[in-house]
Amino acid sequence: MEKDQSFITDDVEKQGWTLLEKSIAYYQNRPVGTLAICSKSPNVLNFDYCFVRDFVPSALLFLIKGRYDIVRYFLEETLKLQPTEKQFDAYTPSKGLIPASFKIVSDNGEEHLEADFGEQAIARVTPVDSCLWWVIILHAYVKATKDINFALQPQFQQGISLIMELCLATRFDMYPTLLVPDGACMIYRRLGIYGYPIEIQTLFYAALRAARKLLICAGDEEIVIGIDNRLPLLRNHIREHYWIDINRLNKIHRFKVEEYGETAVNQFNIYADSVPYSDLSSWLPFNGGYLAGNVGPSQLDTRFFSLGNLMAIITSLTTEKQSQAIMNLIEEQWEDLVGQMPMKICFPALEKEEYRIFTGADPKNLPWSNHNGGNWPVLIWFLTAAAQKTGRSDIGKRAIELAQARLSEDEWPEYYDGTRGILIGKGARRYQTWTISGFLLAKELMRNPEHLELISFGEYDSDNTSLVCDL
Amino acid sequence: MEKDQSFITDDVEKQGWTLLEKSIAYYQNRPVGTLAICSKSPNVLNFDYCFVRDFVPSALLFLIKGRYDIVRYFLEETLKLQPTEKQFDAYTPSKGLIPASFKIVSDNGEEHLEADFGEQAIARVTPVDSCLWWVIILHAYVKATKDINFALQPQFQQGISLIMELCLATRFDMYPTLLVPDGACMIYRRLGIYGYPIEIQTLFYAALRAARKLLICAGDEEIVIGIDNRLPLLRNHIREHYWIDINRLNKIHRFKVEEYGETAVNQFNIYADSVPYSDLSSWLPFNGGYLAGNVGPSQLDTRFFSLGNLMAIITSLTTEKQSQAIMNLIEEQWEDLVGQMPMKICFPALEKEEYRIFTGADPKNLPWSNHNGGNWPVLIWFLTAAAQKTGRSDIGKRAIELAQARLSEDEWPEYYDGTRGILIGKGARRYQTWTISGFLLAKELMRNPEHLELISFGEYDSDNTSLVCDL
Repeated sequence: MEKDQSFITDDVEKQGWTLLEKSIAYYQNRPVGTLAICSKSPNVLNFDYCFVRDFVPSALLFLIKGRYDIVRYFLEETLKLQPTEKQFDAYTPSKGLIPASFKIVSDNGEEHLEADFGEQAIARVTPVDSCLWWVIILHAYVKATKDINFALQPQFQQGISLIMELCLATRFDMYPTLLVPDGACMIYRRLGIYGYPIEIQTLFYAALRAARKLLICAGDEEIVIGIDNRLPLLRNHIREHYWIDINRLNKIHRFKVEEYGETAVNQFNIYADSVPYSDLSSWLPFNGGYLAGNVGPSQLDTRFFSLGNLMAIITSLTTEKQSQAIMNLIEEQWEDLVGQMPMKICFPALEKEEYRIFTGADPKNLPWSNHNGGNWPVLIWFLTAAAQKTGRSDIGKRAIELAQARLSEDEWPEYYDGTRGILIGKGARRYQTWTISGFLLAKELMRNPEHLELISFGEYDSDNTSLVCDL
Repeated sequence: MEKDQSFITDDVEKQGWTLLEKSIAYYQNRPVGTLAICSKSPNVLNFDYCFVRDFVPSALLFLIKGRYDIVRYFLEETLKLQPTEKQFDAYTPSKGLIPASFKIVSDNGEEHLEADFGEQAIARVTPVDSCLWWVIILHAYVKATKDINFALQPQFQQGISLIMELCLATRFDMYPTLLVPDGACMIYRRLGIYGYPIEIQTLFYAALRAARKLLICAGDEEIVIGIDNRLPLLRNHIREHYWIDINRLNKIHRFKVEEYGETAVNQFNIYADSVPYSDLSSWLPFNGGYLAGNVGPSQLDTRFFSLGNLMAIITSLTTEKQSQAIMNLIEEQWEDLVGQMPMKICFPALEKEEYRIFTGADPKNLPWSNHNGGNWPVLIWFLTAAAQKTGRSDIGKRAIELAQARLSEDEWPEYYDGTRGILIGKGARRYQTWTISGFLLAKELMRNPEHLELISFGEYDSDNTSLVCDL
């Protein structure tokens, strides 16, 4: 009988832990995060940066292992990097933002942190996800440690409030979703995800859920009212307008267009000709469905984006039925969505003219490579978590077996290329920390589904919103 | 010798005035705006709406003619429609917005105004330009009437401040430009103008210039400081990053990519392959240039958008040299940019896959039709104003002669189709008010260039910003 790979601690896992330990960054003799790459070679770009986004699986893993200090210091130090005053120079980061990354710089033996909000980044893309992840990690920290007092400290309450103000601020548009520029999240280059991309909306939902709990415990009612107003609108908007399954596709396919007034059924005036309905109708199983990549005026991006869909399951942004349908789809279209390495960042890739137009002819995002339909091992922890949440642990197990067989041997690459994720990514760096921590976290989640509590939320009941601190 | 058509008041102009008078909307027995269409046929969609954007040339025309009341009532009534409280329902218009349009509704003899911020619109696009135009019109009203006290009324100062707060609010990105969704301006459908489209940036610049003057006179220093910080950054950003001429094209064509850090030359990481450099290099005259349609990460939209370019000249957003270069380009590429009806809304049209992808396969925006490369007669006033501003009145004269020969005969259509603008627009309505007022305004601007003062601004001198009320 074959051994269940997901439960045993083997050499691969041991190697992972050894590497992860080596990636820990120390600042003034305290651990404050993990560097992007475990091999400390100064020849690799960004090797000495700690990216907020990349640290997420490490943070959850350290919390699971009771190593709270590194997460606490990370939260404290990144909070200090958050601008708290209105900036008059439009080229400086806005009040409330959390940087994409930071670096430990030593000047004559004196250490300080250097934050990057995108000013240094190629093409100068500002991250929107960092501040959302920061709140989510803080919430996980409080859950793990049961130390609510940590989040009740005035500077933390201010930090959360500033992020919420930034997200809930008055804007031009009239949707409950967040309008962001292209490339504002894990996909940090142009890939046609401008507008209201599902990844940002899901993280926004999670951050609202997390912030609500942390603010209630401090008795901050004003922002909580704002959050309570937004949450059900955002949830219902996503569940209704982003959802695609055979039934919904049928409706879209027969939509009337140019409807005017408040009774319009095709509210976003989607033209059926812009939707690849024929491909979708043969690809979608009857019991499957997923959240679209983006919804806006005359815009329905039907690509499947993994992080957004999986986090929607984990945070109960989707209904229980929708969550099961997403898992059914992953199971049925395993070769497309998971292939040989869990899992695809998005499917399908942009090809031909779409590739040229949406990416601006980016040679780093050729079809089926990198952000454009590559396979990213870090996504395995989201997949495993969603599998546990929906009671489909067989899917998590199957994914871990695939990763286990190759990751160590391939030296933990950042991403894989090709339709099935068989080739090591063209520009992928080896010993990528979140590839390692994502894998280790997936294994922990398989061993003990209770760890899911750190990152998941139950259904939000808008009729029964309690203002009691119940963290 | 041929008579100069631009100086005589002929039958076409007389007809125009008769029609314009008929379009005036009365609310509680006071004139408050002009309806979108002059023929009051209830069979035409939107016939009874007054659109803020459409009213602009009418407003300027009435100010020139000393008919201040209609503009005053328009400003007063639209101001009352501006939300002044933070809205908790994300589907309601934000604090500070000015509606896209309003309608006079009669209930049992009791009249009231019904505003639309996009909730009623096809695809529910929220207008961003309305609030910017509102400030610009208010500034023109004060200039025309010399009645600064009108703008000093508390509700007007509040109105301006709310608009400025909305525009200057803390956001995710770090550019001095405004991030808006696709279709947030005159082009109110998807056309690939998401991000930082030039039309919005130019109107934003004009609104900042106008608001600055109106707020200084009231002694409001805080927002003025915010404006003074933004203006030079915005201006320099547009002059540098949006500008395209042969020299700049040469640089872009040879750009290095993937540059990292603050010293990057190709700041937006534009890939030369995404730019149609061969077409552009044969289309651009050596003495010509223009502002790109959009600039963002790995994004350079090289389409020419008329409103943005012409308003940039009128408001001195471009340098004197750049303004002349834009007029040179229009003169050299007259057939493409003006054709038989001044003038193209943008050039070239999106065709083939680009059309399908960017518009979402919108049958109302087929290549060379409507917003996608159609010719819009209303743009003649912007062209004439820019011609006067640059001392190129021959261009204005030439444009007016073209319009004069056809507009009345064609029953004043909204737009024309085809590469040369020869066909009356497929879905164009007749007797479109802003076609008429745009033409009449162009004639007034030709007769007396001093009227330009209502809408134009001199070079903004950031080293010498006076806080003295000098309106």
